[in-house]
Amino acid sequence: MHYPLGTVKRTVQRAERGAVEQLGLYGVATVHEAMGRLGLMHTVMRPIYKGARVSGTAVTVLLHPGDNWMMHVVAEQIQPGDIVVAAITAPCTDGYFGDLLATSFQARGARALIIDAGVRDVVELEAMGFPVWSRAISAKGTIKATVGSVNVPIVCAGASVEAGDAIVADDDGVVVVPASIAQQVADAAAAREALEGEKRAKLASGVLGLDMYNMREALAKAGLKYID
Amino acid sequence: MHYPLGTVKRTVQRAERGAVEQLGLYGVATVHEAMGRLGLMHTVMRPIYKGARVSGTAVTVLLHPGDNWMMHVVAEQIQPGDIVVAAITAPCTDGYFGDLLATSFQARGARALIIDAGVRDVVELEAMGFPVWSRAISAKGTIKATVGSVNVPIVCAGASVEAGDAIVADDDGVVVVPASIAQQVADAAAAREALEGEKRAKLASGVLGLDMYNMREALAKAGLKYID
Amino acid sequence: MHYPLGTVKRTVQRAERGAVEQLGLYGVATVHEAMGRLGLMHTVMRPIYKGARVSGTAVTVLLHPGDNWMMHVVAEQIQPGDIVVAAITAPCTDGYFGDLLATSFQARGARALIIDAGVRDVVELEAMGFPVWSRAISAKGTIKATVGSVNVPIVCAGASVEAGDAIVADDDGVVVVPASIAQQVADAAAAREALEGEKRAKLASGVLGLDMYNMREALAKAGLKYID
Amino acid sequence: MHYPLGTVKRTVQRAERGAVEQLGLYGVATVHEAMGRLGLMHTVMRPIYKGARVSGTAVTVLLHPGDNWMMHVVAEQIQPGDIVVAAITAPCTDGYFGDLLATSFQARGARALIIDAGVRDVVELEAMGFPVWSRAISAKGTIKATVGSVNVPIVCAGASVEAGDAIVADDDGVVVVPASIAQQVADAAAAREALEGEKRAKLASGVLGLDMYNMREALAKAGLKYID
Amino acid sequence: MHYPLGTVKRTVQRAERGAVEQLGLYGVATVHEAMGRLGLMHTVMRPIYKGARVSGTAVTVLLHPGDNWMMHVVAEQIQPGDIVVAAITAPCTDGYFGDLLATSFQARGARALIIDAGVRDVVELEAMGFPVWSRAISAKGTIKATVGSVNVPIVCAGASVEAGDAIVADDDGVVVVPASIAQQVADAAAAREALEGEKRAKLASGVLGLDMYNMREALAKAGLKYID
Amino acid sequence: MHYPLGTVKRTVQRAERGAVEQLGLYGVATVHEAMGRLGLMHTVMRPIYKGARVSGTAVTVLLHPGDNWMMHVVAEQIQPGDIVVAAITAPCTDGYFGDLLATSFQARGARALIIDAGVRDVVELEAMGFPVWSRAISAKGTIKATVGSVNVPIVCAGASVEAGDAIVADDDGVVVVPASIAQQVADAAAAREALEGEKRAKLASGVLGLDMYNMREALAKAGLKYID
Repeated sequence: MHYPLGTVKRTVQRAERGAVEQLGLYGVATVHEAMGRLGLMHTVMRPIYKGARVSGTAVTVLLHPGDNWMMHVVAEQIQPGDIVVAAITAPCTDGYFGDLLATSFQARGARALIIDAGVRDVVELEAMGFPVWSRAISAKGTIKATVGSVNVPIVCAGASVEAGDAIVADDDGVVVVPASIAQQVADAAAAREALEGEKRAKLASGVLGLDMYNMREALAKAGLKYID
Repeated sequence: MHYPLGTVKRTVQRAERGAVEQLGLYGVATVHEAMGRLGLMHTVMRPIYKGARVSGTAVTVLLHPGDNWMMHVVAEQIQPGDIVVAAITAPCTDGYFGDLLATSFQARGARALIIDAGVRDVVELEAMGFPVWSRAISAKGTIKATVGSVNVPIVCAGASVEAGDAIVADDDGVVVVPASIAQQVADAAAAREALEGEKRAKLASGVLGLDMYNMREALAKAGLKYID
Repeated sequence: MHYPLGTVKRTVQRAERGAVEQLGLYGVATVHEAMGRLGLMHTVMRPIYKGARVSGTAVTVLLHPGDNWMMHVVAEQIQPGDIVVAAITAPCTDGYFGDLLATSFQARGARALIIDAGVRDVVELEAMGFPVWSRAISAKGTIKATVGSVNVPIVCAGASVEAGDAIVADDDGVVVVPASIAQQVADAAAAREALEGEKRAKLASGVLGLDMYNMREALAKAGLKYID
Repeated sequence: MHYPLGTVKRTVQRAERGAVEQLGLYGVATVHEAMGRLGLMHTVMRPIYKGARVSGTAVTVLLHPGDNWMMHVVAEQIQPGDIVVAAITAPCTDGYFGDLLATSFQARGARALIIDAGVRDVVELEAMGFPVWSRAISAKGTIKATVGSVNVPIVCAGASVEAGDAIVADDDGVVVVPASIAQQVADAAAAREALEGEKRAKLASGVLGLDMYNMREALAKAGLKYID
Repeated sequence: MHYPLGTVKRTVQRAERGAVEQLGLYGVATVHEAMGRLGLMHTVMRPIYKGARVSGTAVTVLLHPGDNWMMHVVAEQIQPGDIVVAAITAPCTDGYFGDLLATSFQARGARALIIDAGVRDVVELEAMGFPVWSRAISAKGTIKATVGSVNVPIVCAGASVEAGDAIVADDDGVVVVPASIAQQVADAAAAREALEGEKRAKLASGVLGLDMYNMREALAKAGLKYID
Repeated sequence: MHYPLGTVKRTVQRAERGAVEQLGLYGVATVHEAMGRLGLMHTVMRPIYKGARVSGTAVTVLLHPGDNWMMHVVAEQIQPGDIVVAAITAPCTDGYFGDLLATSFQARGARALIIDAGVRDVVELEAMGFPVWSRAISAKGTIKATVGSVNVPIVCAGASVEAGDAIVADDDGVVVVPASIAQQVADAAAAREALEGEKRAKLASGVLGLDMYNMREALAKAGLKYID
């Protein structure tokens, strides 16, 4: 389905709330593994402050270089528990978002912003407890001249995002889980997590991964040679 | 006016002190907006530690790749309240500045260093409370072999800087305000700031920017369409 | 000596322990100067958290893009006081290392990881007190399919590293000191450090580097001109 | 629809052949404008030689860093007139493709390769007349160890691509046209092209765009001021 | 002098024509040396086709990200022999310029475009013989919504440019010569060029630079040691 | 073996001439595969003109940022058939090399320059038939103030190079073959090349790599699934 620029889609099939909350418990690295090593955004996306971990459902917005008009349009589409995911139609580092918009987003119930561009007022955003993952920090202001779209499928930092998808973000990055498999991925993440405690204890006691995972034979077969 | 390399200009028309202090109150994003969205340095310029905000008058220095000799020359031209702004004649990430030079700059009354290259001893600089905005952190040492210039017009991280200009730097970046308009920009920033409180309160109460700024008609006219 | 991929060298001539500990006292900037301004890694290598300073002896590992199999092989070669230094055969930002491997490395006595790629679980790594210097933070998982090498000479972030070399890393970056000159560099660093206190006091009192280092004549000879 | 890694979709709804051929006549810049300024790949995608212009229908392939196994799988899915579009699950510049694979692709009827990674044998590829748009040129070889997917939706250089979409590539870059709107975009491009000749003639005669497009009033209203 | 956005300066003091033509004879590397190793733009600025060398007088234009409206405004200010130099208020790679604008610029007598952004229609531009030096090639279209400025001082790719300055561009890059010193730099370039023929002949005969420039003593004094 | 800066090693064990010539026949991609997928320089190293392929023995030079003094020192160490490989002690794009130095290098019998920095006079270099692979093209001039080293081991664009190593460079990049294995790699390359003709013929006839390499079973075992 192709949407021309200038489309706001109001109806969104959000990922099931329980699955989204559960995904937030495991964090980005585990969720990414659990969905088969897909869905990560590019590593240029970094949190503006350390220590935040969020999960939520995506509302998407597509903007123009140097133009943040649609940020006000997307604000109206936010429901509590949502995360706004913003893409630009061409590479841009301008500061599309600051403390005023964050106040509005927060009042609407948004949990975070993920934006493939820049943000500003980062001191105030941290004080408000409104986390942002972005490509840049930039005081550069934007104009309001051209319409983009809201809740259409976008590509943000190399990842495909549809409105309603589950988003998980923490200090390791940002991952997108399609709404249709959110519960399945949450279950796989839970299973994965359950195994980690035992592994950690073994490794902490000095057992090698070589032995714990029985890798020695495969390594030898692959040609690994030890010399002195 | 063209200055050959090897020129130290001793006389500087500094931006009026009161205006400079005032600009420091508003921060980079507001000041940049107040001067008509001009004067920002490139977003690669980042503070070496979080939470610093400074304003001051520029003393400029132009150096060669891998050569920090002129840092000692500029030190003598510092007056209390100045910020040293350093450019290199070609891209370079070497560590031009560390705790010894910072001790000297601080003793002369400098408030900060803005450098389109690298710095080192960042732990010590933070402990001293001497903030630096730079393109890189690098332990790479430099030589002292070639003369550059001091207090000539430079381009630092994409921004034009003349000695005496007002500089404001915080976690959002670095902005340059020409000395001749420092007071005018400070006034515009004050006016801008005065309006923000009311806007913030409205947005926090759930009023949308769409309504607060009366955007709906303009958006429709620009072709925005809502679908379900 | 050329080693084909798939070689694990078990015997390592480690830099003398006393020299390695001593180097850790001075930090990267001083050590780099003390060895004649050589041995620094590229400035893209950044610590995943602030404030760590380590020194240790290198065990090296060469891996493939997107494949962390050899991390388990290198774990077995770690001795207490070692730092694992990891290079990839082509540019890659994948997350080769997380909290499970860190648990194993720490149990073996490793002090840090230096990796020209990505790491994940950075919150957990900081909580464990296991420092990493890396090119990227990435949740991207890796496979275990192809053998690389351990303790062969590698190039990591532009620096040549041999197993047993002394490594020093802090917030200024990472420096490599060949094992054969570790004590000599430590001595030179000590001598350098001894002079810094006096210089710092002079500069703090307002003495200019221009005078402390007697630069004025050389600058004039090099063509420096003062104008008003 | 989410597809796990390891999926090869054999059935592809290809954009209508006539529309695809027509799009190739207009080139990337015109087609991109005609579809409302959407669908461009990132400008890092460059042709390995100058002067090629192609259009075709996408067959997509998703590969792992450093692993080109799926290139052989996608080869079987090529039909005459197709263009292979390749994405990697994480940033990678390895040389996934050379003259042998090009021989196979060409034998199957492929017109070009678009790859968000590296290629090699570029002299031979130019001699064969097989154009490639890529992020890098790299001799780095790849392994064949992990399965990816074919003809699933991918993100290539920031653009969303589905199998069957129309692809146009020339020296200006690469644009993706969804199959469902290929004819509509071709018609819009034709209309756009028809107007260009007249405009070009006017501009060549010295008429200004200011006058031809009646911009003077709008500029004045937007605040443009002329000074001497 | 600070100019607010929205200013078009009609009066330009152009560098003396004879000096500008002369500078074009020597090329960028020689001119840059002749003016004391200043004035070069960043190396990301590359010609869209090989083999062009131009000199001319700058008319400057400052544009917004993704907005090429001012390109039409600057066109009117072009005089025969001018080169348009374009800067953007924030990093942007969009395609601001194509064959229609080139037709207009060429009709007005412009010799080239230097732009710190992207251009498109590069095949057509080469066919027209209208050279462009740019940061990117991009088919991405732009809007016409916000006014910028013409013939105000700008920073383009790290170099300060005033309207009327002499510009020289070739395959080595782009250099800016302030109008006030254009003749002086042309003379210095001529002198420099005059010496090159003799040097080249000596070097071609096998004489070493070490001997031709009498470097051996200085190198030994600087500590150079020969070993076997 | 650690060499302090300021060392010129005159004695070089060059790779056997016959092996070096033979390596030049196969090109970079084949040689890199033949030596086990090691030894490639980073893909930022690009030829200044298309179509050159060279092989030769390395003479190495280590220079400082912005300083090309050692280029004259290395010139004396060139023997016919050598390729100069130049590294800088920190990232730098300055133009270290132009037509005068190329005249000297060519007179000494050098076949090419590989430099992890910039070069200039690229038009003249192409006219002379002196190929260069570099990170940048830059007219930026350099000084002659600090000694570096010649024929010590260096890291150039991520690859370790020792004087005497075989270098192969073409449009696919640059590869380094240790002198001790040059003949062995040449033989492996020859064997590899011998097999390519037959493979190419099969693929050209439409046989799939899937069948020619018997990949179908392994792919199925790895989990590949076909759907419609």
